[in-house]
Amino acid sequence: MSFRDDDSSDIGPPVQSKLESFLFSCELSSKVPFYTFQDGDDEEDLEHFLELRTVCLGEGAKEESNVVEVTAMNHQGKTISVPIANLHIKCLPMVSLGEFELKAPVTLRLKAGTGPVTVSGLHLIALQAVDSDLSEDDEEEDEDEEEELPAIKPAKKKQKQ
Amino acid sequence: MSFRDDDSSDIGPPVQSKLESFLFSCELSSKVPFYTFQDGDDEEDLEHFLELRTVCLGEGAKEESNVVEVTAMNHQGKTISVPIANLHIKCLPMVSLGEFELKAPVTLRLKAGTGPVTVSGLHLIALQAVDSDLSEDDEEEDEDEEEELPAIKPAKKKQKQ
Amino acid sequence: MSFRDDDSSDIGPPVQSKLESFLFSCELSSKVPFYTFQDGDDEEDLEHFLELRTVCLGEGAKEESNVVEVTAMNHQGKTISVPIANLHIKCLPMVSLGEFELKAPVTLRLKAGTGPVTVSGLHLIALQAVDSDLSEDDEEEDEDEEEELPAIKPAKKKQKQ
Amino acid sequence: MSFRDDDSSDIGPPVQSKLESFLFSCELSSKVPFYTFQDGDDEEDLEHFLELRTVCLGEGAKEESNVVEVTAMNHQGKTISVPIANLHIKCLPMVSLGEFELKAPVTLRLKAGTGPVTVSGLHLIALQAVDSDLSEDDEEEDEDEEEELPAIKPAKKKQKQ
Amino acid sequence: MSFRDDDSSDIGPPVQSKLESFLFSCELSSKVPFYTFQDGDDEEDLEHFLELRTVCLGEGAKEESNVVEVTAMNHQGKTISVPIANLHIKCLPMVSLGEFELKAPVTLRLKAGTGPVTVSGLHLIALQAVDSDLSEDDEEEDEDEEEELPAIKPAKKKQKQ
Repeated sequence: MSFRDDDSSDIGPPVQSKLESFLFSCELSSKVPFYTFQDGDDEEDLEHFLELRTVCLGEGAKEESNVVEVTAMNHQGKTISVPIANLHIKCLPMVSLGEFELKAPVTLRLKAGTGPVTVSGLHLIALQAVDSDLSEDDEEEDEDEEEELPAIKPAKKKQKQ
Repeated sequence: MSFRDDDSSDIGPPVQSKLESFLFSCELSSKVPFYTFQDGDDEEDLEHFLELRTVCLGEGAKEESNVVEVTAMNHQGKTISVPIANLHIKCLPMVSLGEFELKAPVTLRLKAGTGPVTVSGLHLIALQAVDSDLSEDDEEEDEDEEEELPAIKPAKKKQKQ
Repeated sequence: MSFRDDDSSDIGPPVQSKLESFLFSCELSSKVPFYTFQDGDDEEDLEHFLELRTVCLGEGAKEESNVVEVTAMNHQGKTISVPIANLHIKCLPMVSLGEFELKAPVTLRLKAGTGPVTVSGLHLIALQAVDSDLSEDDEEEDEDEEEELPAIKPAKKKQKQ
Repeated sequence: MSFRDDDSSDIGPPVQSKLESFLFSCELSSKVPFYTFQDGDDEEDLEHFLELRTVCLGEGAKEESNVVEVTAMNHQGKTISVPIANLHIKCLPMVSLGEFELKAPVTLRLKAGTGPVTVSGLHLIALQAVDSDLSEDDEEEDEDEEEELPAIKPAKKKQKQ
Repeated sequence: MSFRDDDSSDIGPPVQSKLESFLFSCELSSKVPFYTFQDGDDEEDLEHFLELRTVCLGEGAKEESNVVEVTAMNHQGKTISVPIANLHIKCLPMVSLGEFELKAPVTLRLKAGTGPVTVSGLHLIALQAVDSDLSEDDEEEDEDEEEELPAIKPAKKKQKQ
């Protein structure tokens, strides 16, 4: 069906980045039902990602369904929302999400229930680096292809020219 | 049993790709019991992958088994279906699937139950790049081998010649 | 305790491979209690891996323990069996296994219960490539070491000479 | 939304590191409700990471919610706390967290319940290495960018100059 | 908090390794309550790792807590034990652990309950290779740093000199 080379961009040329990782915390309840993870006003070469790790009912959670919804951008550049967790204190008081990584801005919302629900994760900050050439040939054709990409790329540029 | 070099294609030559990642959302219910994730009409060098992340019962789910089935292509080029989630509001209201990645087209179907069930994931768009040579020898033999591959490769070509 | 360089073979020289990924589906029940994932008769440079993703009770599952066992080769070249899932419709109707990858042949068997149980996964097909030299020194010593390896390697050769 | 090149720092230049991995164990109860994972007094080029793997109720756990909280540094350099597990002996006696990696110092605390709760994980020790050049061009521009990074980097320096 | 370059050792110079992967199986019960995963007597350049994947109650498990404990070496070179699973046939009959990798020797023990409990996993065998130089500069300083490492490295040497 597919070659697994789709991960190859992670390591290969042409774009390199550095990545810092910090703890992320957010509590949602009926009082404060949403939280937006922002890009920040920092240096323009920095990108902020939220890697969701656990969603966890807190002390005092009632016997009710607590649904947590995430809002972020789809491939058409539109903002969409999707429930990612449904927790119940008598049945599933928490969930581990693996490494669910979303680019800022991301909004977390308590769509059903009153919580409290805590979302833990990692706040990743990436520094975009310029292209590095591992190979010296075929690069021109490669760059030609990249120029087709902006058609589907979101507004904020990701690569330094 | 096996050398773990099977992941090595992810990073090494000869095929490199770039990968964009967006939020994916889909709600299945008795009213709209299936959804097809398509390749899109975009540039032919782009490939679309669906990385399933969570399957989650929504508000109003009944006490019944909700089975979600995925349909995609097997290694013989035939379309096959397989249930990937069985959720029950009183027992397992959601599941985290890790990084279950499938190449478009992929159909998600509510095979049992009435939902609503939401499927979250990442919509990955890969741009295929040309071969880059990290080493300058042995490449010819390497390319000879690649030419054997199309025998098992699905119709849609993946590598630029 | 250990250096994490054990994953380094995934990417580094000397062996490179290409990897295709397809959907895998298998249903086990009292009628058809086992399934064997085979290597196939295809080109000899292809290797087949089964990456187990979910095990899921199907419609009509009874209130009983359903145990799914996997049979594959251990490090001594012997075939061994081990239960990898124990599901119950009232308690745990499905499980997500992460990326549990086994080399063909692999047999899946419904050891207890009557199912139906569906196993989803990815069928990975790897094409072995020849060695590529990233560095030009130390390679001879490296290759000497590789020649020690066949002592523990299973019968089917993995690397082209 | 994002290019997945954010992982590319893991492998590429300019910073390389070596990583050792050891078993980590910690038991929390009403008697000893917290534990701090420290950096140690060892060589200054070593960094200590805690990769949380499982949180597990122990023998004698009562029918109550046991909430485990983690305290570490956020992206603003402030210490924050977030519940990462909520376990109940009648409902969810343990959880597997995947690879939740945090840099020392990290404090684990039993915020609710009396335990005992055991936290398993890997204690990772990284040795920072100097830059290695895979490519010989574009490096100067690359290094210029790195010099912008310290603005958001925590106090403890990570790279040798 | 941290640069994610800690994984970079996985792929980069100076140490390369090859990795074979086999199925691992172990059953624990009141009759045979522990199992030790050993290094073996094979070639000295081989290292054995146990990657735990699932812990699963078997047929005939009673309504009791079954606690599985793992014993391995901590960062101080001492052998420590930590419960990694707590299963109950009426509540959580199995768990998927992701990729919890430990270096031999590792002992698995049924600390509470009578089982049977089966532990599945992968037995990884790594062949250490000599350093390969991807870059030709900065290596001397790099090697100087490596010589500081043995202070925290366990007795068994990992790198060929």
